[in-house]
Amino acid sequence: MSFKRLIRFVSTDSKVYFGDAIVPSTTTPETFDPRFTKEAHVIVGDVFSSSYTITNQIKPVAQLLCPIAPSQLGTVRLIGLNYSKHAAELGSPKPKFPVGFYKPATAAAGPNDSIIVPRFAQVVGNPNDPKDTKPQVDYETELVVVIGKAGTNIPKDKVSEYILGYSVGNDVSQRTWQIARGGSQFTTGKMFDTWAPFGPAIVSPSVVGNPNDLQISSYVNGELRQDSTTGDMIFDVVELVHFLSQGTTLMPGDIIWTGTPGGVAAGMKDPKWLQDGDVCVCKLEKVGTVQNKVVFEKDGFRDWKL
Amino acid sequence: MSFKRLIRFVSTDSKVYFGDAIVPSTTTPETFDPRFTKEAHVIVGDVFSSSYTITNQIKPVAQLLCPIAPSQLGTVRLIGLNYSKHAAELGSPKPKFPVGFYKPATAAAGPNDSIIVPRFAQVVGNPNDPKDTKPQVDYETELVVVIGKAGTNIPKDKVSEYILGYSVGNDVSQRTWQIARGGSQFTTGKMFDTWAPFGPAIVSPSVVGNPNDLQISSYVNGELRQDSTTGDMIFDVVELVHFLSQGTTLMPGDIIWTGTPGGVAAGMKDPKWLQDGDVCVCKLEKVGTVQNKVVFEKDGFRDWKL
Repeated sequence: MSFKRLIRFVSTDSKVYFGDAIVPSTTTPETFDPRFTKEAHVIVGDVFSSSYTITNQIKPVAQLLCPIAPSQLGTVRLIGLNYSKHAAELGSPKPKFPVGFYKPATAAAGPNDSIIVPRFAQVVGNPNDPKDTKPQVDYETELVVVIGKAGTNIPKDKVSEYILGYSVGNDVSQRTWQIARGGSQFTTGKMFDTWAPFGPAIVSPSVVGNPNDLQISSYVNGELRQDSTTGDMIFDVVELVHFLSQGTTLMPGDIIWTGTPGGVAAGMKDPKWLQDGDVCVCKLEKVGTVQNKVVFEKDGFRDWKL
Repeated sequence: MSFKRLIRFVSTDSKVYFGDAIVPSTTTPETFDPRFTKEAHVIVGDVFSSSYTITNQIKPVAQLLCPIAPSQLGTVRLIGLNYSKHAAELGSPKPKFPVGFYKPATAAAGPNDSIIVPRFAQVVGNPNDPKDTKPQVDYETELVVVIGKAGTNIPKDKVSEYILGYSVGNDVSQRTWQIARGGSQFTTGKMFDTWAPFGPAIVSPSVVGNPNDLQISSYVNGELRQDSTTGDMIFDVVELVHFLSQGTTLMPGDIIWTGTPGGVAAGMKDPKWLQDGDVCVCKLEKVGTVQNKVVFEKDGFRDWKL
């Protein structure tokens, strides 16, 4: 039997387990958010091979972890400018081909972990402008596709065989390092530890159904910022997996972040950048939420050759 | 005792070993190229921990493999436009900050492996121009830094503690997918399996000495194409490790490709793109050479929405 909502968690015995989240009898499965999982059936074996078992052992969930363990997590691929309104708000033309970039695996974090903003990412947009006091730290809620099987040149009609499930994530971005100082590449503004929190579970395709028709939103301190549907993606999940696998082996444990809708701070006339203590919530219908507090680091190296 | 030139190889017993390359008595260590290693002292244990041993067992070398095993290889970071002449030949300004990008770990290949050009990467620059018949496949010889120890916010004066050694690699690039079709990001033009051959060994810092003063060159079918020194790097090895570790944990098995000098095909008035059957040689003083044949794949998916 396949899992429905795979979580990785610390139980009350302080040990780490994989589990299939149990939907409480008081909740309908359609609206259940694995972020609030109270208990789970323990899973033994490796979900990235076919040899795993959902046991009858039930464990209480004390803390949710990133649903993929560091030793399992492969390449973290992301797609930029994949919603028309987001491309427009950043002043970019609608892309003709998927725009790919990556984060290092060390950016991964759990669904409730803090987003740590290192001093290096606290640089302001224009250090010579005394009014420019806010580092350009931004949120991006995204549908995350988890690859379950190795594949190269995957045909569109076979893509579903390679998808283990879906998560929701926050592609946290520092716009000064991404754009003004990025030398055209998004890399530096996206690379920091904890800047790719995702989860709360890997939700099975059997639960999610069509991934291209899900409400997707984000909130900062309770204020709605992004509110769209994955149906607005320029390149849908099937097209992205097909494209990214051309001449390139996608591996079990690789994840694909599929882009963010309009509503990020960078698109605002008076940008509401993330600040120390802010709470970001990223929601995806049928998949759940991640909620992460923004913590500005007080120590460390501040800036680079200013 | 630490290794001098760590190789990974298939021996005559068809088994895979790690080894410390033996310099033949007829060769001076200064000019020895590990690509021609005949035999090696077998290494047991993991060089990415401190618990490895160079044994007295000597094994013949039948075939050199990529010096890092797939299970050990972490994030593959690359730096673009890091030599002034290369930035100029691509019409890019000299960067003020390092320009980072990545390849997936599946791009790694051995020092003598073929570079496979998938059909997807055989698209020509302008499919509507009957004279434009050559896919824009290009070579880039680079100094590769291998990280040996986890570190975050690494101070400049501590960088040497985190470097396990150096290799030379070919950052093979498809310029149409990198630039015209990349949507500003280099990713797609760099992502293919086998497009990051490196080796022939991980050469110890004790052998290399100063990594910022090495001759670096490339040849295609014997013709000299790139000819420079790593002293021309805009950001040197210490600056790059310091920069890339800001708020970001560099992990054992991560590698950093430090950019390529001028002389690539893309910089030529009449570009000499790599063609099926071409042989690329990338050389780095004190480190060795990788030599890879270019093989155009005959089957597979050809193009994307044309």
